[in-house]
Amino acid sequence: MSMQIPRGTQDILPGEIEIWQYIEQKSKEICSRYNYKEIRTPIFEHTEVFARGVGETTDIVQKEMYTFTDRGERSLTLRPEGTAGVVRSFVGNKLYGEASQPTKLFYTGPMFRYERPQAGRMRQFVQFGVEALGSADPAIDAEVLALVMSIYYELGLTDIKLVLNSLGDKESREAHRDALINHFKPSIGEFCSDCQNRLEKNPLRILDCKKDREHPLMQTAPSIHDYYTEESAAYFKEVKQHLDQMNLPYVVDPTLVRGLDYYNHTAFEVMAEGEGFGAITTLCGGGRYNGLVQEFSGPETPGIGFAFSIERLIMALKAQGKVPDFGNQLDCFLVTLGDEAKAKSVELLYQLRQAGIRCDKDYLDKKMKAQFKAADRLNVRYTAILGDNELNENRINVKNMETGEQVEVALDTFITYMKEQVEGGK
Amino acid sequence: MSMQIPRGTQDILPGEIEIWQYIEQKSKEICSRYNYKEIRTPIFEHTEVFARGVGETTDIVQKEMYTFTDRGERSLTLRPEGTAGVVRSFVGNKLYGEASQPTKLFYTGPMFRYERPQAGRMRQFVQFGVEALGSADPAIDAEVLALVMSIYYELGLTDIKLVLNSLGDKESREAHRDALINHFKPSIGEFCSDCQNRLEKNPLRILDCKKDREHPLMQTAPSIHDYYTEESAAYFKEVKQHLDQMNLPYVVDPTLVRGLDYYNHTAFEVMAEGEGFGAITTLCGGGRYNGLVQEFSGPETPGIGFAFSIERLIMALKAQGKVPDFGNQLDCFLVTLGDEAKAKSVELLYQLRQAGIRCDKDYLDKKMKAQFKAADRLNVRYTAILGDNELNENRINVKNMETGEQVEVALDTFITYMKEQVEGGK
Repeated sequence: MSMQIPRGTQDILPGEIEIWQYIEQKSKEICSRYNYKEIRTPIFEHTEVFARGVGETTDIVQKEMYTFTDRGERSLTLRPEGTAGVVRSFVGNKLYGEASQPTKLFYTGPMFRYERPQAGRMRQFVQFGVEALGSADPAIDAEVLALVMSIYYELGLTDIKLVLNSLGDKESREAHRDALINHFKPSIGEFCSDCQNRLEKNPLRILDCKKDREHPLMQTAPSIHDYYTEESAAYFKEVKQHLDQMNLPYVVDPTLVRGLDYYNHTAFEVMAEGEGFGAITTLCGGGRYNGLVQEFSGPETPGIGFAFSIERLIMALKAQGKVPDFGNQLDCFLVTLGDEAKAKSVELLYQLRQAGIRCDKDYLDKKMKAQFKAADRLNVRYTAILGDNELNENRINVKNMETGEQVEVALDTFITYMKEQVEGGK
Repeated sequence: MSMQIPRGTQDILPGEIEIWQYIEQKSKEICSRYNYKEIRTPIFEHTEVFARGVGETTDIVQKEMYTFTDRGERSLTLRPEGTAGVVRSFVGNKLYGEASQPTKLFYTGPMFRYERPQAGRMRQFVQFGVEALGSADPAIDAEVLALVMSIYYELGLTDIKLVLNSLGDKESREAHRDALINHFKPSIGEFCSDCQNRLEKNPLRILDCKKDREHPLMQTAPSIHDYYTEESAAYFKEVKQHLDQMNLPYVVDPTLVRGLDYYNHTAFEVMAEGEGFGAITTLCGGGRYNGLVQEFSGPETPGIGFAFSIERLIMALKAQGKVPDFGNQLDCFLVTLGDEAKAKSVELLYQLRQAGIRCDKDYLDKKMKAQFKAADRLNVRYTAILGDNELNENRINVKNMETGEQVEVALDTFITYMKEQVEGGK
């Protein structure tokens, strides 16, 4: 038992790793077009960073964190999400003082939540996320939305839906909050104990409750849309106009509230609409968090971001049959016969690799036939065959595995020949 | 204090991230030439995995691990190195049963050791490592050595030294062990308490002791070279012959023992010889570990691998002035004048990005002059200038920032024009 993989974690092995590499490469390439640059923050932070940055009253902080004490008696926590660490870094490294603003960042890496493992919900999972700090222009909300949708679209996902809402500014939220309290208070005894706690602390969360979703008062709850200030309404309108300009489809859902304390204005989710996801259909969540940098003792700085789970994205790509064929990953396999040829192959292999060619040989003293079989299994483009006889006569045979054509090449020119073949065929 | 970054960890920010991306990309590309595939194992494992895989008596296990208990009362440990997790995965996923053998893997990611932080020694650091499991051919030892040296050489490092030794097979090691005990036992009272503990448990480690390195008995200690069995000597000879074939320089150091319990036969380090490293000169360490898979209840399987710290590699690249110029990272900046042009720029920017062009615009309502300054600062290749007038007349101005040349383009053809310019200039 103790030598097994920890519950809720997984190994990503060759055969599966290719899709991870493909998603990461594509996401990073798209970020470079949008001028978002990578940041890496530590795997753990002082626990306070998440208590403050995610919200003391959230499920994440109350129930799901991997918190431990290090040998210096510090309380540390494995990051349950990426935003808090990025904002801690933004403030600590005074990135707000850099000349180029807004600060546009992306990150990718493992996150940790102690939850009941199920499909699409692991204790260690990988998030890809983006944060744009320093601008309150609705155009940057639209940019962030375009960025995440571009990632999904360019990976080939089709049955997805961008769900959008605005939570308004502070004034809108406070008016809405009061209305929610008035709405639920008389009947709060009919709600779960979590909701009873939420009533005064954060009544918006009641709308998010899974236990009480069927309660009739949920349907009639006051909508934030009726409490927008003029500025909030204008801001939301402009975000939607920009999305229309870009022909990016979306639906507005006034009940979309997001679970985190620090959201305001734009909030959004990307949902999978196809089959094969079970209960989990949210691929990505994000929103604007204009108060968060101040929570970290930084200057007043608007911000917006999103994060998506790569595990769930892979589930979606698989469910929609959008995993590409990663094709030929090896150019050449060296088959040898005899001890001299075998020794020589070490040198040839090294020279091929120096020349940029992806190649391999046998390391298990296999007979010639088994070496050919290994080459077949690796689906190589070329097999080079060297026996002691050929070696003595300074020649080598090269077989094109697609055409079946075999040519004899002078051993001196073998590396150059292979380089031409491989580069020509690309 | 509690909102600061944890001691011994670091943020990797834009400006510094480029060298990390460059090293990772280069290392992965070289691994693909050598047919090593990526594996990712969890950030934490059951503590037993490291106790067994690294060795109960090592400093790592005894003093440096981040060990904690999760909410299910499991003892978990943040990985202090990469090999134990890979071997746990190799056994747990029965990779030894796959058709392609040996199993050739690489990994990269954060590792954790609770040590006194100093230059080149962080509590969270990143290792890049390789494991080849399933072959006891000396040619694969040479391949692994060629792989790590290729990474260093192709990154441009010059003042580095491959230091090589053989620790022999079990029989050689036992004979050497007895000789070491006989050598040190009479005077063991003159050695540190760690060494006194090591005497019976693992006397080889005494040779590695930093406190007792000046003791005269260290110089006269029996060398493993005098205890090789015939097979061990032949194996070592063949590894060296293959290195000679590949013209890879190395020096043999009989005192190189490596700290981990499971090494046998080939052991090696890559050392930095230049200035600027202080006390830390080891860039990379590795070796053969033929008994390790069995420790994890897997079948008898030979293995060899190495790991290097990316932080130290970066120190070496910087010290030797080998950090490349990462050049132009943005193709185009959109400068606008007037509200209509500003709104239109959201759409143009999106279309440029859809066309594969890396571009950006202002999100802070800056005046035109300040927008040009921002473009300069970003070192863009092209600036596109759109005013309300131009917009009404369906035209836009494009300035080549290298030549200073400015042309007027019909707005309808702007995206196509930019695509041609950017792709043509690459």
